[in-house]
Amino acid sequence: MATAGKVIRCKAAVAWEPRKPLSIEDVDVAPAKAHEVRIKVVATSVCHTDWQCLYEAGNASNLRPFPLVLGHEGAGVVESVGAEVTKFAPGSFYSTAHKYHSFGFSSLFYSFFSLLKHFVVVFPSGDKVIPLFLPCCGKCDRCKSDKTNLCKKNWENMQAGVLADGTSRISCRGQQVYQFLGVSSFSQYTVLPDTSLAKIDAAAPLDRVCLLGCGVSTGYGAAVQTAKVENGSSCAVFGLGAVGLAAIMGCKEVMASRIIAVDINPEKFEKAKEFGATDCVNPRDHTGKTIQQVVVEMTDGGVDYALECVGSPVIMRNALESTREAGGTCVIAGWTETETMSVPVIKILMGRTLKGTYFGGWKSAEDVPKLVEKYMQKKLKLDEFITHSLPLAKINDAFQLLVNGESIRTVISLGEETDKPERTPA
Amino acid sequence: MATAGKVIRCKAAVAWEPRKPLSIEDVDVAPAKAHEVRIKVVATSVCHTDWQCLYEAGNASNLRPFPLVLGHEGAGVVESVGAEVTKFAPGSFYSTAHKYHSFGFSSLFYSFFSLLKHFVVVFPSGDKVIPLFLPCCGKCDRCKSDKTNLCKKNWENMQAGVLADGTSRISCRGQQVYQFLGVSSFSQYTVLPDTSLAKIDAAAPLDRVCLLGCGVSTGYGAAVQTAKVENGSSCAVFGLGAVGLAAIMGCKEVMASRIIAVDINPEKFEKAKEFGATDCVNPRDHTGKTIQQVVVEMTDGGVDYALECVGSPVIMRNALESTREAGGTCVIAGWTETETMSVPVIKILMGRTLKGTYFGGWKSAEDVPKLVEKYMQKKLKLDEFITHSLPLAKINDAFQLLVNGESIRTVISLGEETDKPERTPA
Repeated sequence: MATAGKVIRCKAAVAWEPRKPLSIEDVDVAPAKAHEVRIKVVATSVCHTDWQCLYEAGNASNLRPFPLVLGHEGAGVVESVGAEVTKFAPGSFYSTAHKYHSFGFSSLFYSFFSLLKHFVVVFPSGDKVIPLFLPCCGKCDRCKSDKTNLCKKNWENMQAGVLADGTSRISCRGQQVYQFLGVSSFSQYTVLPDTSLAKIDAAAPLDRVCLLGCGVSTGYGAAVQTAKVENGSSCAVFGLGAVGLAAIMGCKEVMASRIIAVDINPEKFEKAKEFGATDCVNPRDHTGKTIQQVVVEMTDGGVDYALECVGSPVIMRNALESTREAGGTCVIAGWTETETMSVPVIKILMGRTLKGTYFGGWKSAEDVPKLVEKYMQKKLKLDEFITHSLPLAKINDAFQLLVNGESIRTVISLGEETDKPERTPA
Repeated sequence: MATAGKVIRCKAAVAWEPRKPLSIEDVDVAPAKAHEVRIKVVATSVCHTDWQCLYEAGNASNLRPFPLVLGHEGAGVVESVGAEVTKFAPGSFYSTAHKYHSFGFSSLFYSFFSLLKHFVVVFPSGDKVIPLFLPCCGKCDRCKSDKTNLCKKNWENMQAGVLADGTSRISCRGQQVYQFLGVSSFSQYTVLPDTSLAKIDAAAPLDRVCLLGCGVSTGYGAAVQTAKVENGSSCAVFGLGAVGLAAIMGCKEVMASRIIAVDINPEKFEKAKEFGATDCVNPRDHTGKTIQQVVVEMTDGGVDYALECVGSPVIMRNALESTREAGGTCVIAGWTETETMSVPVIKILMGRTLKGTYFGGWKSAEDVPKLVEKYMQKKLKLDEFITHSLPLAKINDAFQLLVNGESIRTVISLGEETDKPERTPA
């Protein structure tokens, strides 16, 4: 690519300080260093955690430095790679043609691809990727263990908003701008370690599969990976945002017999039913009873699996107490960094299990491409989560829609170039 | 037996009211009703939960009615059975001889047993049993499930201190005396449902195997059944009473590579090492650090398994925070009925699991006989838990030894008749 090795000036939504709207700025994105990949972000969705980081900064997210570029649920194409990157290829004629040539295509085909050369420049055809806030190096003990997905490659740095060398690749007006969780998908370009990227199907629509970067993978995995919901079991899902709907999707896929969707916003119920909820409960409709009492009564003792998809310690306790004794499992998928939940010990002693999930238990770089395939085969919903599409310039509106409970996911497109020309031949 | 069908007057330690010493009284024990078994309690050990029920009544155990006879860690022999009891036989010539006769023994043997008849009266030879505060009916969904041991047969009644018909079989001076957890092993005789008794090896020494009625089974099972501690893993055991030592025994059996024993009483450490502890830590030796910090440092990130064997919500949190992220498991074996513990949500989100164990996860009537066999084969320690032996008249001293941290288990013998004559031929 013509841009390889050079600083790219592009647009990004910068969070200059907590509790202030994001500001669209021209930022400079430095080239990838060794073991890093610079990607062009084509689409990103907006997750509640982005909002939390900005508007609850100093509270739930007091470790995040400002200024920073938020966004961690994106998808894009590889623009260029740093030294020693072997698993990702940027969009260039050579690499594309070479790839086909090596598969034994005739010289006629080679000539045909030659003609496409200039199109390649216009429509980047680098590997399609999903940036990952959870790394997956594939080599450490954790990556090799079947008990966890929590790879710690570059973890501390990425949590602190920088890459392996302790610096960010994004700057604005000469000032370093931190990368939220090492990602920063609210920028047209960003740089990630090569262990924090999933290479996905070249035919995948980036403005859909970006949802697999966080929320959908988390909720779906909470059900099928962490809780391991079983055929015929009863479930309760607390919170009907993207994570909760994805959890419902997981419960339905494994054929849970009862899926109780819980939210204080009844406007979420129709969609919850589309995703597979068998019952919808608004706690506010049951005065004089706690939601756990309601669920326990509905299920003659409590559900087998409760999935907390809000991030509230109070709701976590509600969820735990909604599970049945002698085998009930509560999985926390909602996010909070600093809070504690109160657990009545007797509930645990009487056979309940409390677990958490991070990115749905998926080994990110390894499993995300499989989730993309599942979507491509129409075995996993993604389109149904998307309620709004907006350009980057309107990203603050996306936050507003989210906190007002009006959107499930808003997809932000990050440039004039879309990935459609690449989708057509697929 | 000459006593079958009649009220038996015998000695029992009665708790007339909370926070007062037990009083040795003559009590009347009514005959067993249908599906009930009256047993002669030969030995009982004293568990911290008995003490809690008495001295923390109105607090942790505010549901227990007084007066009551405490004791739930006993062993004895069947004295008589009510109607429809098929699995237990009382000590009588007829039943003994009949049993052997039906196995095809010759009439010579029959005559030989005839001669033993009067010995049988002196030394009861009914089935040896361990009374169970946790029932095991063998027929319900829970008994058939491999996920739980929490059979609920007669549960509510036994928790309330009565049997299936809502009354106790023990009375004193004409007043009903409640049976603690339906058991009351601090009485020379008591009556239990036939689903709350384990029939054990006729050669088992009752003054040893009584320990399997609660504490040892709970701690040992917490490690091998609930936590499923693995070969080569690291463990921390909080609290070095009988439950904690039994947990250490379990960790050692499965060849955990590191077993860290934690207690504020360093006098427990020698015994902990005998049981298998590799390290002993007194939190008071580490000023300026929490015990979880100490354990995390000792193990480069935390233990694989932490076992709470105290019953304190603060220590439960310490234990949880001592486990490593990405797979650590904390099992609560200590007992508290009304308290809540505080759980930092991030600890759960980062891959820790919180579980509880009740009676060590054992299916009581089914598994206790196997634990007895394990002891008989010298594959399970019991003798090593017993630090004191006292007659029933000194039961208050046993409580004192326990709360002073001077005893692990005191075994109380409940009468002149011991089970020794039965042990000799074994």
